[in-house]
Amino acid sequence: MKILIIGAAGMVGRKLTEALIAGRLPGTIDSLVLSDVVEASIPQGAPAKTRSVVTDLSDPGAAEKLIADKPDLIFHLAAIVSGEAEADFDKGYRVNFDGTRALFEAIRQENLKTRYKPKLVFTSSIAIFGEPFPDAIPDDFFHTPLSSYGTQKAMGELLLADYSRRGFFDGIGIRLPTICVRPGAPNKAASGFFSGILREPLSGKEAKLPVSEQTRHWFASPRAAVNFLLHAATLDTAKLGARRNLTMPGISATVGEEIEALRRAAGDKAVALIKREADPAVAKLVAGWPRNFDASRATSLGFQAEKSFDEIITAHIEDELGGKTG
Amino acid sequence: MKILIIGAAGMVGRKLTEALIAGRLPGTIDSLVLSDVVEASIPQGAPAKTRSVVTDLSDPGAAEKLIADKPDLIFHLAAIVSGEAEADFDKGYRVNFDGTRALFEAIRQENLKTRYKPKLVFTSSIAIFGEPFPDAIPDDFFHTPLSSYGTQKAMGELLLADYSRRGFFDGIGIRLPTICVRPGAPNKAASGFFSGILREPLSGKEAKLPVSEQTRHWFASPRAAVNFLLHAATLDTAKLGARRNLTMPGISATVGEEIEALRRAAGDKAVALIKREADPAVAKLVAGWPRNFDASRATSLGFQAEKSFDEIITAHIEDELGGKTG
Repeated sequence: MKILIIGAAGMVGRKLTEALIAGRLPGTIDSLVLSDVVEASIPQGAPAKTRSVVTDLSDPGAAEKLIADKPDLIFHLAAIVSGEAEADFDKGYRVNFDGTRALFEAIRQENLKTRYKPKLVFTSSIAIFGEPFPDAIPDDFFHTPLSSYGTQKAMGELLLADYSRRGFFDGIGIRLPTICVRPGAPNKAASGFFSGILREPLSGKEAKLPVSEQTRHWFASPRAAVNFLLHAATLDTAKLGARRNLTMPGISATVGEEIEALRRAAGDKAVALIKREADPAVAKLVAGWPRNFDASRATSLGFQAEKSFDEIITAHIEDELGGKTG
Repeated sequence: MKILIIGAAGMVGRKLTEALIAGRLPGTIDSLVLSDVVEASIPQGAPAKTRSVVTDLSDPGAAEKLIADKPDLIFHLAAIVSGEAEADFDKGYRVNFDGTRALFEAIRQENLKTRYKPKLVFTSSIAIFGEPFPDAIPDDFFHTPLSSYGTQKAMGELLLADYSRRGFFDGIGIRLPTICVRPGAPNKAASGFFSGILREPLSGKEAKLPVSEQTRHWFASPRAAVNFLLHAATLDTAKLGARRNLTMPGISATVGEEIEALRRAAGDKAVALIKREADPAVAKLVAGWPRNFDASRATSLGFQAEKSFDEIITAHIEDELGGKTG
């Protein structure tokens, strides 16, 4: 099997790469291409035919080159985050929408020539939804994004469904919850504090909390995100019909519930490292975000997330901290 | 007020032009530009500054030229129909999506330069919805089109909402029901028979019925469509919030109910002109289409359609047949 990961240098891309190298998908990997706008490092144990390709999917010809080898399985994870897409309108549409369309179109042109028809897994986002919301957003709730990022993802979903319906590739789009605990340095996402208030105290550092403890949001761990991607890659898409885009399961939790899970994992000492610094601008932004979903469809198709915030913290301690806190 | 109609040569565009010339909008029309890929005829009584412009919105530079005069109000009705967009994938995306995006982007560039911010009314379609459906599709039902045409319209809706949210123009998208009774010659739309079985017998001609009398669909008259456009043009969009796209009201009726309304209007003689010629391909296509909506949101915002199929037939007889049948 030939696999292409676009956006391989990002946090989810790196973890997915490791999972593939660890043999988490059935079958032998004949080649693995790690593509991103920066060099994706090739982990130890990677198959011989592993290449890192630095390219911008939205550059003319870039998509054609990426699929010239006709990968059987494509993970399209590449995107600029919501804050950046909102700050730079042109870049957001170019990278998040035109890049996606260029990929789909390159596959279509190859399909028309040679009947090439890969499996394609696309990461979408709960940012395709916009308030006001019902208590739990159902699978058939409409898509009214309140950000350019959400708009670009929703348009990508529509294209994916149409290109799949027309038989150009076999696509599935998965809407990731907010990933928590996100390891490493903060990125430009306004949602960063949801991870920061756990990640930093678990490493003995202070973290700022800009919103109230009542703030509720929708979460899954990086480990769950990789599991979603692997499950999507092997899922029989005949079960999806024409509705190829799915809200992934997750946990609806308040900041207060996050903090209590941190207390159970690492004690009062860790919790004391959270410094309340109200930021009305962040609070206003977050207030417009989804808080809870009924992700029945994905669950019935076998997608699984954590069942408690304790599990999310355990995943972080095991996967990032070698099993130790503080 | 300067008005631009894109897609002015189509059936709805021509009727809208007549309504504008008849003074159906408040204020004086300072200029009226009728744009289409074919020459739109200028009706009697048009204001002095009325021009017909033959252009393809998806050609490079075409959108910029159309908005160079900075129209205050833009009606964007231009599209190729569903059958053609399905048959010619590239043309469908080029005209229905890229053309729309080019228009929005030309306005944005002018907005960035001069704060130009027109009102923009975009005609979308119930083809953004795909089966399976609830009995009546609510306003918050998700968008899973089963045609490339529906996909292109759904993407246009998303762009319209995002460009409006960012303040580049003041947009509103209206999803028209199937227009019935469509006057004139049949076009490439598979829905043509819904009009044909009324229009042809009302003029003493035979018409083919390819589906069963139980087939249910969602209708409004051309007169109602023009009323929707005029209402959208004057509506205070602050009432819409960020949800700028609306399903228009209509009538849910079966083919059998259509036929009974025809009988009441023109007698058994007219009904006898309908020739049943089952077409399984058309029947299968139509079976996937929406049958009924709960268009509460548009209704509460003052959009009005017919209340019965008798009214739809009356509108046709009055507007197209000079009040006479047979």
